[in-house]
Amino acid sequence: MRTTWDFYSTERIVFGNGAIQQLGEILQRLGAKNVLLISDPGIKQAGIVDKVLALLEQASYHAVVYDQVIPEPPIDSALECYEFAKSQNTDAVIGLGGGSSIDMAKIVALLVAHGGHPLDYYGGENQVPGPIAPLVAIPTTAGTGSEVTSVSVLTDVKNNLKVGISDNYLRPTVALLDPELTIGLPSYVTACSGIDALSHAIEAYTAKPFSFIQAEGQILFQGSIPISDALAYRAIELIAKNLPLAVQQGTNLEARSNMLLGSLLAGMAFSNAGTAAAHALAYPIGGLVKSPHGEVTGLLLPYVMEFNTAVETEKMVKILKAFDINADGLSRKEAALAASKAVFNLLETIGLPTHLSDIGIKEEDVAEIAEKTLQIDRLVRNNPRVPTLHGLEELLRKAL
Amino acid sequence: MRTTWDFYSTERIVFGNGAIQQLGEILQRLGAKNVLLISDPGIKQAGIVDKVLALLEQASYHAVVYDQVIPEPPIDSALECYEFAKSQNTDAVIGLGGGSSIDMAKIVALLVAHGGHPLDYYGGENQVPGPIAPLVAIPTTAGTGSEVTSVSVLTDVKNNLKVGISDNYLRPTVALLDPELTIGLPSYVTACSGIDALSHAIEAYTAKPFSFIQAEGQILFQGSIPISDALAYRAIELIAKNLPLAVQQGTNLEARSNMLLGSLLAGMAFSNAGTAAAHALAYPIGGLVKSPHGEVTGLLLPYVMEFNTAVETEKMVKILKAFDINADGLSRKEAALAASKAVFNLLETIGLPTHLSDIGIKEEDVAEIAEKTLQIDRLVRNNPRVPTLHGLEELLRKAL
Ligand SMILES: [Fe+2]
Ligand SMILES: [Fe+2]
Repeated sequence: MRTTWDFYSTERIVFGNGAIQQLGEILQRLGAKNVLLISDPGIKQAGIVDKVLALLEQASYHAVVYDQVIPEPPIDSALECYEFAKSQNTDAVIGLGGGSSIDMAKIVALLVAHGGHPLDYYGGENQVPGPIAPLVAIPTTAGTGSEVTSVSVLTDVKNNLKVGISDNYLRPTVALLDPELTIGLPSYVTACSGIDALSHAIEAYTAKPFSFIQAEGQILFQGSIPISDALAYRAIELIAKNLPLAVQQGTNLEARSNMLLGSLLAGMAFSNAGTAAAHALAYPIGGLVKSPHGEVTGLLLPYVMEFNTAVETEKMVKILKAFDINADGLSRKEAALAASKAVFNLLETIGLPTHLSDIGIKEEDVAEIAEKTLQIDRLVRNNPRVPTLHGLEELLRKAL
Repeated sequence: MRTTWDFYSTERIVFGNGAIQQLGEILQRLGAKNVLLISDPGIKQAGIVDKVLALLEQASYHAVVYDQVIPEPPIDSALECYEFAKSQNTDAVIGLGGGSSIDMAKIVALLVAHGGHPLDYYGGENQVPGPIAPLVAIPTTAGTGSEVTSVSVLTDVKNNLKVGISDNYLRPTVALLDPELTIGLPSYVTACSGIDALSHAIEAYTAKPFSFIQAEGQILFQGSIPISDALAYRAIELIAKNLPLAVQQGTNLEARSNMLLGSLLAGMAFSNAGTAAAHALAYPIGGLVKSPHGEVTGLLLPYVMEFNTAVETEKMVKILKAFDINADGLSRKEAALAASKAVFNLLETIGLPTHLSDIGIKEEDVAEIAEKTLQIDRLVRNNPRVPTLHGLEELLRKAL
C-alpha cells in the first residue's frame, strides 16, 4: 500500500478578465529577455496574436512569433520551431492557443533549456533533468488544462503514433487565463473541450485512491489524492452549471469564465491524480475515427461512470449533488447511477454524440479497442473498478 | 473593481506517513549539495533532528545543523544563522519544526540567495528580487501552514516589534509533511495550532471577494478567490471533524494526518486570500498578553464570525454544513449564526478559553486594541464587514 502522495503545481496562476494585460509584468518577474510566442493560424486570424504582440511591445518586449502550430503537432514541427528559437536566442516562451500550441511551447521550452531531440525525453517519467525555460501558457480554449499540466503530446507521423512526454518539469511556469480570449470559440469546440474538462475532473475525482494504486516508486498519475479531490469536485460543480450556457450563449462572459476556471481546476487535479478508463479507451478509438479528443472522452464518460458505480458509490452520489440534482427517495446505488445519467443528459443538451456508432465505431472494432486499452497501464490501473477485457467489451457494446 | 486574481503555490507538496523517507530524493531533485538543517531545541530533544540527520546520511548528505531557533525568532538569530550558513557554503536549507523554525529557514534561504540584512526585505511587497535558495519545509505542528506560505515573522527585539517579511518568493520550494512527526505534540499545543489553522481557513473562506478589495496593483492578500475557497472549505471540513480527536487522542494517526492536511490546505488558501479581522485583532492583543497566537485567533474567531454574519450569510451557512450540523428548520440568518456557535463549542471541546478576560484582557484595553487593529490595513480591508472603531469595540466587549 502506498502511504504518501505528491502534489505538483504551477508556481503562479493569473486569472480574470483582462489578465492578459499583465503579460509584461509576468515576463519581467521571470527575467525574460528574448521571447518566442508560439501559436497557430486560427488564433492569428482571430487577431489574438497581434493583440498579444501589441501588449508585448508596450512592455518593451520585441517578441518573435511562430504561428504555424497544427493540431496534433508532429515532432518535426517541434524541431523546426526549436531551430527557430535557437536562431533567435530565445530564453523565454509563450504558448498561446489550444492544447496543441501550449504542448508545442512546452517542448520548445524544454529543448531551449536542455537541448537534444523530443524523443530523448520520451518513454518514461522523470526524464527531464531540470527546470525548462520560463514558459507562460495562455489558453484560448477551456478544456485541456495544458496550461498547468505536466504532459505534452506530439505525433510521430512516420509511425502514426502519439508521443506523450510527461514530466513534472514540463508544467508551465505561469498559467495566464483570460476568459475574454475564449469568447469567440465556436459552440462545437466549446462543447468538445468543455466535456473533456469534465472528463478530467470526474476521472480524477473517482480515480482509485492513491494508497491502492499498484506501482513502484515515483509516479505521475497517482490516483485520487486529497488536494486533487477538492479541486476536481469544484471543477465538476462549475462545469455542470456553466457548460450548457457557454455552448448556447457564446458571449456569456460569466459562463466562459467559469468554464475556464473549471478546466483549470480539472487540469490541476488530473495532472496529479491522472485520468482513467474513459481516457484509456479514447486512445484506440482516436486512432480509428477523426472525432476530437473531447468528443470521444465525453461520449465514453457516462458509460465508464456506470461501469464504475459498482465499486465507487459514494463519490458518484456526490457528483449527482454537484449537478444540483436531488437524490431524495433514491437508494445510494440509484443516486450513483443517476450521476452517469446526468452526464449523459448533459451530452444531449450540448449537442454531442452519445453513442459510439454516431462517430463511426462498429461492433467489429470492439475487441481491438478493448485489447489496446488494456495496454495503457498508467490510466487503466487508475480506474476504481478493474477494467477486464470482458468488462471493457461489454462497456463498449452498451455504448455502441 | 479588481477583475483578476493570482494564485501562487509551492511547486511540490509531499504528504503522508513516512514521507520523510523521501527527503534525500527531494534534495537531489533540487540539486542540493551543502545542506543546512534549521530546527529548535524541542525538536532536537524529541529525537526528530537526529532522525532526519540519519536519513540525510543514508542519502549521502552531510548536513550541518542549527538547532537554536527560539519562538518568535529575533532578527539577530536569523543573522547568526545566516553567518553560519555562509561559513558552511550552504546552498540548500531545511526548516524542521513549528512556524518559527520554518520562518527562520525562509529568511536564511533568502539571505543565502540574495545577501544583505532581513530588514532590507521588510516594509513592502515584492521586495525579494528573485527565487530564494532551495528550501524544504518540514512542519512538526499542524497549524501555521508556514510550509507553503509567503510570510516569515521575525522579532525586532529592540523596538518590541513583529517584523513580517512577505513575498511570494518566500514560499518553500518543497513542503514535506509527515503526520507521524506530529504524534508527540502535547494536547494544548495541538489545540492552539489546530484552531489557528481553522482561523486561517475560515478567515480566508469568508474574506471579502477579491473584486471588492480596495487596493492598487499587485497585492499578496487578495480576498476570497475561487481556488482558495475550494481549499479553505475542505480545510474547514477536515479540522471540524478531526481537531477534537487530535487533541484528545494524541496518537490517533488518522486524526493527526487530517489535521496536518487541513492546516496545509488552510495555508495554501490564506497565503493567497489573506486572513481578516480575527488575525488583525490578534496583533495588538498579542502585544498585551503572553497567549500563543492560535489561542488568541481561535478565541476571537466565533465573535468575528458573528460580526460578519450581517453581510456574509451564505458562506457561514456552508461552514455550518462543514461542521456537519443540520440547518433544517433554521432561517438562513439563524443557520449562519449557528456556525459561529459551532466554533465556540469547538473551543470548549478542546479546552481553550472562550473569553478575552480568560487570557487577561480588560475593559480598559478595548479602545487601544480597536484603534491599533484598524491600522493593519492589509487584513482589515479583507474583512467582509467593515470593522469600524465602534464595531470593533462592541465585538471586543462581547468577547470579554
Ligand atoms: Fe482529455
Ligand atoms: Fe494564524
